[in-house]
Amino acid sequence: MSTMNNQVQKKMNPLTLQQVTIQDPFWSSREQNVTETVVPYQWDALNDNIPGAEPSHTIENFRLAAGEAQGEYYGMVFQDSDLGKWLETVGFILSRERDPELEKTADEVIDLLERAQQPDGYLNTYYTVKKTGERWTNLRDNHELYCAGHLMEAAVSYYQATGKRKFLDIMSRYADYIATVFGPGSDQIQGYDGHPEIELALVKMYEATGEAKYLELSSFFVDQRGQQPHFFDQEAEKRQENTSRKRSYDYFQAHAPVREQQTAEGHSVRAVYLYSAMADLAVKNGDQQLLDACKQLWKDTTRRKMYLTGGIGSSEFQERFTVPYDLPNDRAYAETCAAIGLMFWAHRMLQIEADREYADIMERALYNGVLSGISLDGKSYFYVNPLEVWPDTANHRHDMSTVKVTRQPWFGCACCPPNIARLIASLGQYIYSQNDARKELYVHLYIGSNAAVELAGQQVRLLQTTSYPWDGTVELELDMDQGAEFAVSLRIPGWCKAAKIAVNGEEVTDTATNSGYASLRRTWQPGDRITLELSMPVELVFAHPALRENAGKAALQRGPVVFCLEEADNGVNLQDIELAADAKLKAEFDENLLGGVVVINGTATRSDSPAADADELYATSPAARVPVRITAVPYYAWSNRAPGEMTVWIRCRA
Amino acid sequence: MSTMNNQVQKKMNPLTLQQVTIQDPFWSSREQNVTETVVPYQWDALNDNIPGAEPSHTIENFRLAAGEAQGEYYGMVFQDSDLGKWLETVGFILSRERDPELEKTADEVIDLLERAQQPDGYLNTYYTVKKTGERWTNLRDNHELYCAGHLMEAAVSYYQATGKRKFLDIMSRYADYIATVFGPGSDQIQGYDGHPEIELALVKMYEATGEAKYLELSSFFVDQRGQQPHFFDQEAEKRQENTSRKRSYDYFQAHAPVREQQTAEGHSVRAVYLYSAMADLAVKNGDQQLLDACKQLWKDTTRRKMYLTGGIGSSEFQERFTVPYDLPNDRAYAETCAAIGLMFWAHRMLQIEADREYADIMERALYNGVLSGISLDGKSYFYVNPLEVWPDTANHRHDMSTVKVTRQPWFGCACCPPNIARLIASLGQYIYSQNDARKELYVHLYIGSNAAVELAGQQVRLLQTTSYPWDGTVELELDMDQGAEFAVSLRIPGWCKAAKIAVNGEEVTDTATNSGYASLRRTWQPGDRITLELSMPVELVFAHPALRENAGKAALQRGPVVFCLEEADNGVNLQDIELAADAKLKAEFDENLLGGVVVINGTATRSDSPAADADELYATSPAARVPVRITAVPYYAWSNRAPGEMTVWIRCRA
Repeated sequence: MSTMNNQVQKKMNPLTLQQVTIQDPFWSSREQNVTETVVPYQWDALNDNIPGAEPSHTIENFRLAAGEAQGEYYGMVFQDSDLGKWLETVGFILSRERDPELEKTADEVIDLLERAQQPDGYLNTYYTVKKTGERWTNLRDNHELYCAGHLMEAAVSYYQATGKRKFLDIMSRYADYIATVFGPGSDQIQGYDGHPEIELALVKMYEATGEAKYLELSSFFVDQRGQQPHFFDQEAEKRQENTSRKRSYDYFQAHAPVREQQTAEGHSVRAVYLYSAMADLAVKNGDQQLLDACKQLWKDTTRRKMYLTGGIGSSEFQERFTVPYDLPNDRAYAETCAAIGLMFWAHRMLQIEADREYADIMERALYNGVLSGISLDGKSYFYVNPLEVWPDTANHRHDMSTVKVTRQPWFGCACCPPNIARLIASLGQYIYSQNDARKELYVHLYIGSNAAVELAGQQVRLLQTTSYPWDGTVELELDMDQGAEFAVSLRIPGWCKAAKIAVNGEEVTDTATNSGYASLRRTWQPGDRITLELSMPVELVFAHPALRENAGKAALQRGPVVFCLEEADNGVNLQDIELAADAKLKAEFDENLLGGVVVINGTATRSDSPAADADELYATSPAARVPVRITAVPYYAWSNRAPGEMTVWIRCRA
Repeated sequence: MSTMNNQVQKKMNPLTLQQVTIQDPFWSSREQNVTETVVPYQWDALNDNIPGAEPSHTIENFRLAAGEAQGEYYGMVFQDSDLGKWLETVGFILSRERDPELEKTADEVIDLLERAQQPDGYLNTYYTVKKTGERWTNLRDNHELYCAGHLMEAAVSYYQATGKRKFLDIMSRYADYIATVFGPGSDQIQGYDGHPEIELALVKMYEATGEAKYLELSSFFVDQRGQQPHFFDQEAEKRQENTSRKRSYDYFQAHAPVREQQTAEGHSVRAVYLYSAMADLAVKNGDQQLLDACKQLWKDTTRRKMYLTGGIGSSEFQERFTVPYDLPNDRAYAETCAAIGLMFWAHRMLQIEADREYADIMERALYNGVLSGISLDGKSYFYVNPLEVWPDTANHRHDMSTVKVTRQPWFGCACCPPNIARLIASLGQYIYSQNDARKELYVHLYIGSNAAVELAGQQVRLLQTTSYPWDGTVELELDMDQGAEFAVSLRIPGWCKAAKIAVNGEEVTDTATNSGYASLRRTWQPGDRITLELSMPVELVFAHPALRENAGKAALQRGPVVFCLEEADNGVNLQDIELAADAKLKAEFDENLLGGVVVINGTATRSDSPAADADELYATSPAARVPVRITAVPYYAWSNRAPGEMTVWIRCRA
């Protein structure tokens, strides 16, 4: 497909992990933690070397498939994907700095993958070891192509980091084989996976190999989804399946052809993985109709079905989207993986549209609903990220059984921990983009980093320095061999109501701002310094009136960080606390708290503590109220002290 | 057991259905509806004569047990109890007025019961027809004694109404047999039923027959409950049961001996049936320890775990009590049967303690959480009684699947409809009590009625006239052959802050008030008229601060009636409405609305209707607010118009 006929063109391309190195007071320690703690721990988990933990059996499954071990398959049908996510993360880590020992471990397991691969290219341990001869009989439930997708993403990551082709070749052979099995031909399967993932992975494979059929296969999967006669009906019939196992197809985003989908439905992780692939294909194929569908789904997701934290999927049942404005705080599902998937999607939309709205949501998810998924020490994880917790009900009500008051060390269904790991390890690629033709460098995220980019024929080195998200001041220093004309476009976040820009200390007032990006186009000289000052006061945030759950309430936000009240600072019964809309609220950095965070202090009121035991449950006069000091901490840092109550939304007297 | 040694004595005894006839603008039509519609419909249901409805098979099961039909048992294990509840209701109806046709139907089915009874007295169709030889092998789950209890209650009701002994004798034979099977002897079972019911029924059997062993058996069941070694463990072991079927014993109120139970736990209907029996036994056995347990459980139930409507059991899972102050409005379970059971218990406590607190709760449940269970036309029913409904979530969220937006015609598990029927048909017995020794007549409920009572040797006829609950004026006219000295004690409800009493038009200011009862003791003359004026303004009710769900909210109550906002009167998004604590609220009777109800009109504010589609989900300024008129209707009458939103608790700016 020629780009000449494209209606849709990307506005920019992200700088890659090979181009960007994070050096940041907030993020470097988190990145290091993934490298030094999470990845080794995860490797031990994959190898069943963690005493007391439920076995993963992932590596052993590959040994079985390779005929190098005796025994039975063990684990979920998607167990292979755990190795995929691990290897992808390893690739991201090696992009920053080669590590011979880690690379040796990876190479060895890649060799194992090769030995486990079947002569025709097929590579899936569940079907090779346990369900021999039953390949492609239950695409709906068994994550066969999903696992392939994660291994493909890993192969691309590892290839980009190391330049070694072996893993990429293994996955190319598998992709080539898959392309023979699936397609429009009468001898092919007109199907697709119940869990989208391979679609976006095939686009990466196409980018890494230039092999057009991978892109075509991805398009086939995406466009086949939801067509009639319905593939899931057909394959269920072939399996002579008991109809009681059937779920409604919106769970799989297969209730209608994707171009006709107007609302975000079903399992939220699956949804955003699919929408990410749709955005990729809209660009690669110049497909305006597909982009329009993405934009409509984006609007429905972010304006009807997203928590303030960037969490999505408000129902534990089927981990799914529900109806517009149904965002209960205490029964929020808001799976960590879904917030991560929202970032994937936002990042893709941003490259197409160059609109800060996408970067705003990406940042909202990152600093809140994603980061809340991992403890400060990196050793425990939330799968579910509620915005309000009362341990009495979370621990005792059956309809809250998935809500945990404390992070858990690892999960039987270990999707979230490795997903956070790969997100943090690849964070560098979310910070910058460039547009070659327009000689424009975009700065999306304010994270201390070095970047190397060729602009206007010059090798430009950019040094970003900031104490973000605690402080809104960002320094950007440009370094190159000689002066060059190009634009630096800085995102002015949606949350920021007053931004100042100076170049070499001199305020710039005449910047053009396009879709939230302030663009400085000039002939830059080596050593030029841009200073961005984003005003970052404490803000009260109010929800749309249709979001019934938050009526009469406000949340505290400062910069991109959403705050919460915790029992540790404010005692029990946080719902009793009422803030005045004009309350004085003061932000202060506390280096000793929660690894160093800004806290918000202020005054509110609460009921004069009654002799609860003597009290009537209902009375015709309200309890007397007294002023109290309140302290709010960043939401992502909640539950890193003694377990207790937490709330993001606070009653507010407007 | 001699009453001479009793520590506990009843303060009063209820006037019976034989003594009281309801003639009331609010209740007579409801009573009539039960007689003319519900009972015939229910009879058709028991006989599988309702086209399209799921078969009940109840009568057919008895025919099978009597050897008069061929086929298999069908229905729940507690299907027999449906006939019990129906016959009990028939008894209540016949107490008011004999009806030869209805009596003939009842006599015939009683004859069938006799033929279904086994030679040893056993009478249970499930075990006779389906599980022959397995009697008493699963007391925990199979409601064997529960069914016996309902049939016993029915037998007592029918005997009291008609004077016919046959049914009572049948059930006496069954009770005699049960008393041989259960007891402390080494050849007896030291067990009890998973669902309390027979305990209170045996007390009624004792009262009707004077047979002391029924009282002893009831005491045995109550005191055996929760003892170690645990009976449910022992019988499960005998069944060689898979341990995965085990529930925690608090579900059955069998987690500890009842005297040690301090908090209301488990399935709420079971709980209040048990507590009712405990109150009965405390009196019959003069058992202060048991009464103390009742009082402690009462406090925990009504001050920690009761909705404003008198609904109890806030969790759909196990239909159970949860933790203190966990009373979610939208996921309220608040089963109709549980509110009815709370009335049973309150009525018993009231006779012992003569404290209006019990009558207040009885009345609260009656006019709200019980009455909401039945539609105005008497043809459809709520099992679950939420205090807030947003159809979007009620219809789509999986964790709200038991919440219905409209009443249902009948239920597969048909416990609530016949329970409401028997409650309404027996309402007369809740209105008055008397204390012979103190020559005192108590008026608990203000319901238009005739009562006949012997007081101070005189046959006193009392005529109560009122437009309650819409108006607080109550007229009581006394009629007897000659003057007599006795006391009339009028309940001044807890919700009433100003009551006036006049005798023959002259205000009485020197009444003694004991525990909420204003006592008029004098020599009454034929034709004396007492006028009670209960001030009944619209009140804002506030919840205890620990009831987090209702923080910042108020409910509207007038007299005993709790009000709600419905979409039909107030549009959508009721959570957006905010009331000022000093809002002018006016009550008006609307004879054309909902069968004639008082409505409350007033002013509140709501968000200026935004162009919802264009709006951001979160913003740093709240939506502008505009004044609106609101109309509240009685909660019990909700969902009798087009289905829509409803809320009892309204945001309130205190």
